[in-house]
Amino acid sequence: MKNSMHKRQAKEVDNSGFSPNSAAEGSRLLNKDGSTNLRKVGMGILQRYSVFHTLLRMSGTTFLFLVFLFYTTTNILFAFIYLALGIENLHGVDVSTNFITNFTQAFFFSSQTMTTVGYGHVAPSGFIANAIASIESFLGIITFALVTGMFYARFSRPKAYIKFSENFLIAPYKEGRAIMFRLATYKNNDLTEVNAEVTAAIHHMEDGKRISKFYPVPLEISRINSLALSWTCVHYITEDSPFWLMTEQELRESKVELMVTIKGFDDHYSNTVQQRTSYNHAEMVYGAKFESMYHRSETNNITEVNLNKVNAHVPFTFANDLETA
Amino acid sequence: MKNSMHKRQAKEVDNSGFSPNSAAEGSRLLNKDGSTNLRKVGMGILQRYSVFHTLLRMSGTTFLFLVFLFYTTTNILFAFIYLALGIENLHGVDVSTNFITNFTQAFFFSSQTMTTVGYGHVAPSGFIANAIASIESFLGIITFALVTGMFYARFSRPKAYIKFSENFLIAPYKEGRAIMFRLATYKNNDLTEVNAEVTAAIHHMEDGKRISKFYPVPLEISRINSLALSWTCVHYITEDSPFWLMTEQELRESKVELMVTIKGFDDHYSNTVQQRTSYNHAEMVYGAKFESMYHRSETNNITEVNLNKVNAHVPFTFANDLETA
Amino acid sequence: MKNSMHKRQAKEVDNSGFSPNSAAEGSRLLNKDGSTNLRKVGMGILQRYSVFHTLLRMSGTTFLFLVFLFYTTTNILFAFIYLALGIENLHGVDVSTNFITNFTQAFFFSSQTMTTVGYGHVAPSGFIANAIASIESFLGIITFALVTGMFYARFSRPKAYIKFSENFLIAPYKEGRAIMFRLATYKNNDLTEVNAEVTAAIHHMEDGKRISKFYPVPLEISRINSLALSWTCVHYITEDSPFWLMTEQELRESKVELMVTIKGFDDHYSNTVQQRTSYNHAEMVYGAKFESMYHRSETNNITEVNLNKVNAHVPFTFANDLETA
Amino acid sequence: MKNSMHKRQAKEVDNSGFSPNSAAEGSRLLNKDGSTNLRKVGMGILQRYSVFHTLLRMSGTTFLFLVFLFYTTTNILFAFIYLALGIENLHGVDVSTNFITNFTQAFFFSSQTMTTVGYGHVAPSGFIANAIASIESFLGIITFALVTGMFYARFSRPKAYIKFSENFLIAPYKEGRAIMFRLATYKNNDLTEVNAEVTAAIHHMEDGKRISKFYPVPLEISRINSLALSWTCVHYITEDSPFWLMTEQELRESKVELMVTIKGFDDHYSNTVQQRTSYNHAEMVYGAKFESMYHRSETNNITEVNLNKVNAHVPFTFANDLETA
Repeated sequence: MKNSMHKRQAKEVDNSGFSPNSAAEGSRLLNKDGSTNLRKVGMGILQRYSVFHTLLRMSGTTFLFLVFLFYTTTNILFAFIYLALGIENLHGVDVSTNFITNFTQAFFFSSQTMTTVGYGHVAPSGFIANAIASIESFLGIITFALVTGMFYARFSRPKAYIKFSENFLIAPYKEGRAIMFRLATYKNNDLTEVNAEVTAAIHHMEDGKRISKFYPVPLEISRINSLALSWTCVHYITEDSPFWLMTEQELRESKVELMVTIKGFDDHYSNTVQQRTSYNHAEMVYGAKFESMYHRSETNNITEVNLNKVNAHVPFTFANDLETA
Repeated sequence: MKNSMHKRQAKEVDNSGFSPNSAAEGSRLLNKDGSTNLRKVGMGILQRYSVFHTLLRMSGTTFLFLVFLFYTTTNILFAFIYLALGIENLHGVDVSTNFITNFTQAFFFSSQTMTTVGYGHVAPSGFIANAIASIESFLGIITFALVTGMFYARFSRPKAYIKFSENFLIAPYKEGRAIMFRLATYKNNDLTEVNAEVTAAIHHMEDGKRISKFYPVPLEISRINSLALSWTCVHYITEDSPFWLMTEQELRESKVELMVTIKGFDDHYSNTVQQRTSYNHAEMVYGAKFESMYHRSETNNITEVNLNKVNAHVPFTFANDLETA
Repeated sequence: MKNSMHKRQAKEVDNSGFSPNSAAEGSRLLNKDGSTNLRKVGMGILQRYSVFHTLLRMSGTTFLFLVFLFYTTTNILFAFIYLALGIENLHGVDVSTNFITNFTQAFFFSSQTMTTVGYGHVAPSGFIANAIASIESFLGIITFALVTGMFYARFSRPKAYIKFSENFLIAPYKEGRAIMFRLATYKNNDLTEVNAEVTAAIHHMEDGKRISKFYPVPLEISRINSLALSWTCVHYITEDSPFWLMTEQELRESKVELMVTIKGFDDHYSNTVQQRTSYNHAEMVYGAKFESMYHRSETNNITEVNLNKVNAHVPFTFANDLETA
Repeated sequence: MKNSMHKRQAKEVDNSGFSPNSAAEGSRLLNKDGSTNLRKVGMGILQRYSVFHTLLRMSGTTFLFLVFLFYTTTNILFAFIYLALGIENLHGVDVSTNFITNFTQAFFFSSQTMTTVGYGHVAPSGFIANAIASIESFLGIITFALVTGMFYARFSRPKAYIKFSENFLIAPYKEGRAIMFRLATYKNNDLTEVNAEVTAAIHHMEDGKRISKFYPVPLEISRINSLALSWTCVHYITEDSPFWLMTEQELRESKVELMVTIKGFDDHYSNTVQQRTSYNHAEMVYGAKFESMYHRSETNNITEVNLNKVNAHVPFTFANDLETA
């Protein structure tokens, strides 16, 4: 393989935040969801791990399940405590010789205490049961205070809600070729003043060792006023491009990775939101064009954007394609 | 109709985020409230639809009504569950042969459980009723945790509270004509470092097809330090303007749409807020001047801004108006 | 009075957001607390008035008092409703012939319902009392949900906490005179990347009418990295200054008003915060110097900033002061 | 000691926000945690002190302990009130001649009221006990509303979570020497568009008095796209550097302090976050190089960043080191 680097005039960047040898062979730097593909070790897990971030990122169903699990577990725990102290300290309970019957009553007393519903047909009697119940109701309030805060944080967390095309294309553009990928917002929100920034990591042999080099990938339009429909980001492959004269085979072998950052202003949140993603060489479609993903609705005179078509493309054969020398 | 495009030297913009054929004939790109006039399809509705955004945007009355509806519906649902399990499991209830009487008592027990008021004159008895009540009180707390979060989000959501004039005017300015519209903040808040950005979409015939072209509409003053009184945004129609030499008739036929973005810093929220709107050709008043909307109050020596006059204007006849050739 | 405007080369600004005739004779444009000195009329008060902003801005004591007032008033209202429905519908009440006794019991039942404490020694009986209680407990939860949100909003609202000197000085500086005012943060917070922007409004006679003209007031240093100690903002009066060659008398007669905006990044809130104030001619001290407001503590080797000295200044007599011609 | 200032061409800065004589002899300007090393006096403590900031900054354990302490103290207080009013006003209590027994029952009634659990086996009777209970339940709700808000604020407060190396190094770089320190994010969050700004405070003799001078410390790379791995900030000591030709001894005697501000965009919070720190002369390691703190994991093909190695460095001897003249 003739090293295509020599054909290129593109300037490297050294402020990508990644290092020439940061990625293992064949693995990507950024995951598809935009997080960095690395693991942090050292320091205690509690210090290193953000409980808040984790609770914020999990799905709504998982979060609700966790809260319910905590509720149940805590009640089981307190039920055992009340039993250990003597079920007869819970006034109103039908003391039974059956463990399950006693446990169940202690469990429900616990849940009535923790949620502060406190019907009172069962009530603590004596110092110890009262003290435990007093702590449990305090704990219940604190727990639900935390859950309230987390609910709000989960709901209100500014997010970009951008759907990216799964592939990037090497598409015809002007007299030559361009790298194209497409994106659209998929929620009922709009972004304004949207910027796109793309950095390419290209594998390269140096002294027999594979290292990564980083290049800016300038776009024809890198800022749009409003992301209403969809946005096809276009990098025209000119002499200044890091991809100048690279053939399909060279592109694949260079293990190219495009790291994409989209940033815009969301007026629902009145906040700047950001979403990152990455495309690697396996996600390249060489010779293809995107299809339009919107049309004018006949029935009600409104423009319809079909989010399922964000990756829709048709093959295209370059008349005089580059050949690997 | 002589195509007025030829008279113009204005440069088009290609980063409006809209496309030449994105709007259906005669319909607008931005709605009056600044949202984009399009519909997203594809992907599941749950994925595409932001419950949070929707709850945030509805009126306060609608939101309260929805919460109350949820409260009532959930209580009805649980009342049926308690009935199905046997009303006799609710200790303290006057078991009746009348369905309504029983249902009512189950409903009120449910509401006492869900709100955690738990008087206790009615209390669950036996495993199943206790279990349902335990779940219902948990659900109640979670629901009101969500409502608490939403209340805060609704209240604290940074918003610009800008009132725009309903019309834009073609008004006399210096030696010629200018496009003018006016705006003011209507709440007891101030904006500082306020920017206005205007883009025009102008319909245009190309190869017998109607397409939109987009032009920047530079303002005489596009940034003010403080939006205290009102702000009349002025675009002077010079040779560089996309509206240069366009007659009233041409302006109407070009189906011009002005897309306006106002952005400023609100020191109540310590946040940048943004509001968008759009003016279409039907909202143009050709030949008019805005009237002042503030005056010095005699009684207490304070300046009064009359928000009802934000659109107040008087007709004006141009001495040598352009005529459609 | 010789009009000093002619001596000046300073350029006016037309983007102050105020208008030449916006201020009434002798009144200021910005209040001392940075709010604009005007009144908005027109539109319904509910539309124009931001309840949230008002609740956010009032003192903590006033806010707590209002919440307590609402709690008491609502309980009185519901007490009357329960009485009207018949006190006998509240099971457990000692029905009395004394109105006060009955009212008191209804009131306390109401408060137990609204706070969801629900002891149950008094409990609703029958459809109507249960329905009212069900609504009241719902209302109680919603109210405290709102209060929770407001508490958080009040606490967490990013604010600059800047204390300004009460006066601005005409102080000696280099070979001439400078306008100086001083500021410091008074809470245990720091601001970084702090900007100051000053605009002057100067009264001026034009065609026998008093109008305001607006001038930028450039500072020797308009941005500091960190506002740790105090900051004396200095405008050196040079030929380009709007105050060039103005005598003490002219300054007073010109009814000068300095409008000051301070903006910085607060790392407690991770947010940009802003505070505005204004100085009018009555707050000018002609011929004075600020005293240092910090010193090195002997006892524990720490720098002490004395916030009470933010306005501390000593008189200074200019050797060759300007004289009104 | 020959004053090394004369060798230097570096320009001072006067907008550091510190003053030449703001630091006491030998003490630092910024603490290690980035807060300013000073004390504010004057004004009432309540005005000067931000309760919110303090509650926000304390550890989670301390915060929970304080809330529990408040809960207990308030209950003790109310228990005394109920006792003072006469324990017999609490219906359901076993009135005893033993103070402790009475107090305990009053305490638990108080806790059941404050948490709104309200079992009702003990309930207030008569006007005064009811009134106190009504106020206590109100107080309980308000307290837990505050705690809910604080929990959310504590959790959601945007923070940078950056770990800095404990030392800064004088390390070999290109043909000469450079100042280097290293940092990494230690939570499962990424920062993008990260900026570093460094200012040096250098002690200096002027007229026999020690004063501080402030210099910008430009970095080879001062902005990186993404802080994923670690970032070694490098200031190359060239002729323009304030450290040009300074020997190890001179560096130590100049009591140099490097004030570092890191700012970036955290996409969890969708917010700009900032963290400051400072390095003083005692934290300098003269002649050393940082070791790499990441490696490719063999087992699962992922890059591992070892946070414990953020300060790991090896000694290095300069071939032709500067000697103090």
